[in-house]
Amino acid sequence: MKYEEEVISSKEVYRGKIIRVEEEQVKLPNGEKAKREIVRHHGAVAIICVTAENKMIFVKQWREPMQRVTLEIPAGKIEVNETDPKRTAIRELNEEVRLHPESLELIADFYTSPGFADERMLMYFAHNLQPVSEELPQDADEFLNTVELTLEEAKEKIKSGLICDSKTIMAVWKWELLELRRS
Amino acid sequence: MKYEEEVISSKEVYRGKIIRVEEEQVKLPNGEKAKREIVRHHGAVAIICVTAENKMIFVKQWREPMQRVTLEIPAGKIEVNETDPKRTAIRELNEEVRLHPESLELIADFYTSPGFADERMLMYFAHNLQPVSEELPQDADEFLNTVELTLEEAKEKIKSGLICDSKTIMAVWKWELLELRRS
Repeated sequence: MKYEEEVISSKEVYRGKIIRVEEEQVKLPNGEKAKREIVRHHGAVAIICVTAENKMIFVKQWREPMQRVTLEIPAGKIEVNETDPKRTAIRELNEEVRLHPESLELIADFYTSPGFADERMLMYFAHNLQPVSEELPQDADEFLNTVELTLEEAKEKIKSGLICDSKTIMAVWKWELLELRRS
Repeated sequence: MKYEEEVISSKEVYRGKIIRVEEEQVKLPNGEKAKREIVRHHGAVAIICVTAENKMIFVKQWREPMQRVTLEIPAGKIEVNETDPKRTAIRELNEEVRLHPESLELIADFYTSPGFADERMLMYFAHNLQPVSEELPQDADEFLNTVELTLEEAKEKIKSGLICDSKTIMAVWKWELLELRRS
């Protein structure tokens, strides 16, 4: 079976600072035409941080698209000038939780909304976290606090809805998987 | 600490069939102003299907935003006229894999890209799948096949990158969690 769509034409219909939107005309495998709406995003990283006391670190912040406070694992956009996503992860960890990892292990590489966006996210596990020697300035429009939770507490926060995004639920499930495999 | 942002003004900058984009001016907790770019989406469902032979069902399809073929669990948008997301899940299962579940168990409720989009996804586990009695018409612009994989095969497809989206990786990890808890 042929799956591939062929781009006939592409038009940028919105250009913001974080996202661009394109409308594509495509030729379907059967020769018919269809329209696709695609959000272009430069990509992001997210980091699983487990402390020496076996607690996971979350960032408490306001999320304007959902009009609510959430608990999420540290994460952030890859800036246009950043070519190594591990550098992005180290920067975000410094800005958001003031910690520096000895090493970062790639846990997952995925698209967040494959139906309408090309945002790709790299998820790392941070090993041997230490306080940073030099604090980077925080983003002027970010107001956040960090929260540390045990696995059971984190699972409770998923149930109560304070943890409510895919990457953070993934992080908690991966943490539980690692714990179960160990036992 | 105050986290909340206050909307000063909102402007629709793009309206498509699947998404809308809004630019918001917000007042930050410190009184400063900032701009937010927000993709509005009507929400979606995704369904974990495990067969009697203990294989998970995936849909093989073209994803235009990433210009590639992927394996994903059955999923789809909640249509404007659909008020019960379980009905959406039943419809999508019929259209995509021609199966009907005896019941649907909510596994997770999450936002896919909380930084720039309000897309909310409900993930269900389908119990006691049976062939549908009546096949609904498939979307004219969707070309797909179904693939059944064991847990080990699914984990291999994550490694090789054919499974590459957050909901599907979540489904495989949840499946592994259920298996590990059972053993």
